[in-house]
Amino acid sequence: MEVHKVVAPPHRSTAAKLKTRLKETFFPDDPLRQFKGQPNRTKLIRAAQYIFPILQWCPEYSFRLLKSDVVSGLTIASLAIPQGISYAKLANLPPIVGLYSSFVPPLVYAVLGSSRDLAVGPVSIASLILGSMLRQQVSPVDNPLLFLQLAFSSTFFAGLFQASLGILRLGFIIDFLSKATLIGFMAGAAIIVSLQQLKALLGITHFTKQMGVVPVLSSVFHHTNEWSWQTIVMGVCFLLFLLATRHLSMKKPKLFWVSAGAPLLSVIVSTLLVFVFRADRHGISVIGKLQEGLNPPSWNMLQFHGSHLGLVAKTGLITGIVSLTVKFLNLSFISYALDCLLSLREGIAVGRTFAALKNYHVDGNKEMIAIGLMNVVGSATSCYVTTGAFSRSAVNNNAGCKTAVSNIVMSVTVMVTLLFLMPLFEYTPNVVLGAIIVTAVIGLIDLPAARHIWRIDKFDFLVMLCAFFGVIFLSVQQGLAIAVGLSLFKLLMQVTRPKTVIMGNIPGTDIYRNLHHYKEARRIPGVLVLSIESAVNFANSNYLTERTSRWIEDSEEEEAQEKHSSLQFLILEMSAVSGVDTNGVSFFKELKKTTAKKNIELVFVNPLSEVMEKLQRADEEEEFMRPEFLFLTVAEAVASLSLKGPSLNNV
Amino acid sequence: MEVHKVVAPPHRSTAAKLKTRLKETFFPDDPLRQFKGQPNRTKLIRAAQYIFPILQWCPEYSFRLLKSDVVSGLTIASLAIPQGISYAKLANLPPIVGLYSSFVPPLVYAVLGSSRDLAVGPVSIASLILGSMLRQQVSPVDNPLLFLQLAFSSTFFAGLFQASLGILRLGFIIDFLSKATLIGFMAGAAIIVSLQQLKALLGITHFTKQMGVVPVLSSVFHHTNEWSWQTIVMGVCFLLFLLATRHLSMKKPKLFWVSAGAPLLSVIVSTLLVFVFRADRHGISVIGKLQEGLNPPSWNMLQFHGSHLGLVAKTGLITGIVSLTVKFLNLSFISYALDCLLSLREGIAVGRTFAALKNYHVDGNKEMIAIGLMNVVGSATSCYVTTGAFSRSAVNNNAGCKTAVSNIVMSVTVMVTLLFLMPLFEYTPNVVLGAIIVTAVIGLIDLPAARHIWRIDKFDFLVMLCAFFGVIFLSVQQGLAIAVGLSLFKLLMQVTRPKTVIMGNIPGTDIYRNLHHYKEARRIPGVLVLSIESAVNFANSNYLTERTSRWIEDSEEEEAQEKHSSLQFLILEMSAVSGVDTNGVSFFKELKKTTAKKNIELVFVNPLSEVMEKLQRADEEEEFMRPEFLFLTVAEAVASLSLKGPSLNNV
Repeated sequence: MEVHKVVAPPHRSTAAKLKTRLKETFFPDDPLRQFKGQPNRTKLIRAAQYIFPILQWCPEYSFRLLKSDVVSGLTIASLAIPQGISYAKLANLPPIVGLYSSFVPPLVYAVLGSSRDLAVGPVSIASLILGSMLRQQVSPVDNPLLFLQLAFSSTFFAGLFQASLGILRLGFIIDFLSKATLIGFMAGAAIIVSLQQLKALLGITHFTKQMGVVPVLSSVFHHTNEWSWQTIVMGVCFLLFLLATRHLSMKKPKLFWVSAGAPLLSVIVSTLLVFVFRADRHGISVIGKLQEGLNPPSWNMLQFHGSHLGLVAKTGLITGIVSLTVKFLNLSFISYALDCLLSLREGIAVGRTFAALKNYHVDGNKEMIAIGLMNVVGSATSCYVTTGAFSRSAVNNNAGCKTAVSNIVMSVTVMVTLLFLMPLFEYTPNVVLGAIIVTAVIGLIDLPAARHIWRIDKFDFLVMLCAFFGVIFLSVQQGLAIAVGLSLFKLLMQVTRPKTVIMGNIPGTDIYRNLHHYKEARRIPGVLVLSIESAVNFANSNYLTERTSRWIEDSEEEEAQEKHSSLQFLILEMSAVSGVDTNGVSFFKELKKTTAKKNIELVFVNPLSEVMEKLQRADEEEEFMRPEFLFLTVAEAVASLSLKGPSLNNV
Repeated sequence: MEVHKVVAPPHRSTAAKLKTRLKETFFPDDPLRQFKGQPNRTKLIRAAQYIFPILQWCPEYSFRLLKSDVVSGLTIASLAIPQGISYAKLANLPPIVGLYSSFVPPLVYAVLGSSRDLAVGPVSIASLILGSMLRQQVSPVDNPLLFLQLAFSSTFFAGLFQASLGILRLGFIIDFLSKATLIGFMAGAAIIVSLQQLKALLGITHFTKQMGVVPVLSSVFHHTNEWSWQTIVMGVCFLLFLLATRHLSMKKPKLFWVSAGAPLLSVIVSTLLVFVFRADRHGISVIGKLQEGLNPPSWNMLQFHGSHLGLVAKTGLITGIVSLTVKFLNLSFISYALDCLLSLREGIAVGRTFAALKNYHVDGNKEMIAIGLMNVVGSATSCYVTTGAFSRSAVNNNAGCKTAVSNIVMSVTVMVTLLFLMPLFEYTPNVVLGAIIVTAVIGLIDLPAARHIWRIDKFDFLVMLCAFFGVIFLSVQQGLAIAVGLSLFKLLMQVTRPKTVIMGNIPGTDIYRNLHHYKEARRIPGVLVLSIESAVNFANSNYLTERTSRWIEDSEEEEAQEKHSSLQFLILEMSAVSGVDTNGVSFFKELKKTTAKKNIELVFVNPLSEVMEKLQRADEEEEFMRPEFLFLTVAEAVASLSLKGPSLNNV
């Protein structure tokens, strides 16, 4: 058998290696690629287009596209108006702030954002977190102005934080929220949010300020005397109507407009009912008088000092991260989860998946900057935290949106509402807003995805349960923290306990594979072939020392008992060792010494460039990286060694 | 070319898999192996021997062994007595507590510990941390009794924590302190400790209570009027003497007894000098009257409630972890670091390395239980935190110790000292204790190891510097926290940004290797061979999506430009993908869809058992784990595909 030399990798300077490493870490998508080798003018245009994606499609915009965008823009506006009012109430903010937040941010996003399908506005989970975190220190009832100031300040910090993540190319931080964490977290949040709606749905006036399942339910059943049958009847009717339309749209995606229009229709019908029957005088609570006019400036309300700064920064950080995740969940999530989440069986995939379908590219870090700036601008114009809304984006796509103009259309519709239609909401009953929220969040409880996770990975399922029960029994932040902590713990455990696999020869070939997977594989007498399936570093070098010494001992015993020979060679298959640090280098040097003491020859197969370089640099006395102990494949190593070792001759 | 079928791994139940996983995680050394298939009586004996390792060697103990042990025991006692007194002062405790701590713990360890070379007693770093952490809340000068109570309580918690780690088989937690962290941390601690000795060495009475470099130096130079020339002269003389003996023993390891005996000799000579010249009346401060007698019980001094409980538990946790690390540093460290650390060029290796030399096995978790129980017992008998002392263990081995009897001999010597010799220390000058500490800790500054780390891994060097500067400019805990944080950050970064390698065929063979490492490797037209070098999980699935799509795009461009063909196959070499979670499974499903959209066939090569199982379970529609897209080697995949794809015929 011809033996191929293992060559040293081509030399590269430390600076060059650092550059590659930094590029792979922070610019995996290589955003500057499009500028390479272009004339200066093209570069300038592309740079402008990169910063303002609107310039990409604006020049080619046509009437045909406009028609589609107007239809989809009106459709999402009909969803955005009732949802905006409802979500603002969820965050303990005046309903009108929800509409403000559906006016300015979509305009900003239309200029800066690269996704053409994303419908921007307030979302339920961020509203819930913002409201519940701020309420820990300030009461929205006793001190509404301060609460509003804190909400805007938190929005500012959320935006600042999001934009910084994008600018510093640290967008991967949100990757640490795994799919399992998110599914558990969102289901928990949906339940918390729905329970909060019992206040509106049952017409209770004295409702607990806590969020947990236990205090809310006990509050509900301690105030049965406050239950109002008129409210309950109205709530049940509209809830059933909304759920029915949702169900219909899920079954027949082409009827998406049914569920998209239902909330607005419910608002109109219920408002009319209340107005006609003056039901507000018969126990049905209504929104009441709303201010007219566009967003007032709010930059003078931002608080950058004082006793609440810590709370505000923390709230901004958490809502910022969570709303990014919710957005990127849309953008990059795989269609399976999407299918499950909305149970829209075909044609639906949001954001980056849309992008792939429509052949344009969404840059994650760039998007974070856009979302961040949108929130910073929003915080100065009376908006609270906004992001890409999941359900509305799906509707937007289904309604045939072509560009970000649909966001502009939505924004204009909201503007018209703010300017002229606000008095119409005076008699809108709170119970209908509650029903709208429940219908919107119920889709976040994703049982098929949970079942899927159970089938594939039991530990992920555990993480999901922790997030779920943490959110509903402890608090939103604690549930999230526990789930993220568990996920990181699992990652670290995998790093700490890498796999070592004992390999055997598949008869009649040069192939060596895991003995426990390929039953026909056979061990070569006198040789132990081990494959280490991970980088070797400080976190696992002690474990690997223990584990390899056990493999060696077991193997020695086996050789002595069964084959009446002795172990002569330890072949380490290094293809999967993606890196080493100083502890890792020490592990290999130590292993060389241990095996030498036992008269076992240590042989390396196919170490990767980085590993090879480091081992060679550490190998001052040239003891173990000599060419005769380095091979390109296990088969070549065994063939060469069998020429040397006497007991191998029978191979 | 014959193609081998990729078989599904043999079926194993979830319970069986969980059992294997737990065993690999918590029992990598398989401690129960020795019991397998043995008669009950042997099992019983072995179990007793496992719990009390003293039973292993006791029956075979002989007069010959005793002689060696007595010599080494007396040698380490001569080191332990002055160091014990000095280290107790470093922890702001009465000097006698240092001797108490060299009496009871060695006896406990002799019964329970499995290392035969470890010399047990107080160590400098744990003393420093204990003293500095407790001093943050309680002054040892104003409230010595409370301080002592807190020290014993911290010792109790340290022991409890250590024993729990061992019992729960969580010993690997200390692996997260990497070699680089430890070297930086110990060098920083050595400087902090040495600077504290300036008080004694210069004879300053008003010394700062802070530990940082800046406050200590400013305190030293603000009190130049307090400098006492008599103290300085004495200090410099003894320091030079001690350093000279240390240097001699480093050069000639056989003269280990010179440096081992020098501290005691210094104490005796300096005490005599002070006594004869009554130098204590001329500005040289002395220890003063010491209590006689053995350890008084102290269990009634342990505090399990009250305002200091948090401090005590935290101090116990940190000193517990650090002293375990210091000990296991001894036990498992590679001889290179040992060589550097003590610069004893031959014959020296501590703990587990000793164990390997002398053919006995040290069980890390078992050792933690022993050390933990030793501290719990110690806390009830007026001892503070003890562990395996590095320098004394090395001396112990050099002096030829054979079993734990050397610890017993040391303990008895300390007992005799406590009972009869305490009055002799009345005139021992503090300056000599300072000189002893400086000489002991100076060996912790390990420049060759730092240079070694710089050569092998620049990031590890950065971690080392952070630990070092963190300790000397911020605080011991903060320095440690920063370094551990950075190390974990690096681990997570590696997990988040796994390598993907593009592979080519080495001409004339079936071997496929990294194109950038093996320059002769050639790409196959129409085929992209990618190797993913890590488990695919939630932390990296987004990155991998971006990265593979860039590989595919680049490859498509290249194909179109150079070869006027198109990319037809994406071959994923999965040998190094050691695991997947639900996000990972989604990544592969999504990749299948993306490639299908581009008319590229996705082919898997050699997925490992776990990965294959999970992919199959997720593959309900049997779209991508079909046998025709699964191969055992890249070469077989290429050979099979070339029969199908038209543009591959020229291969």
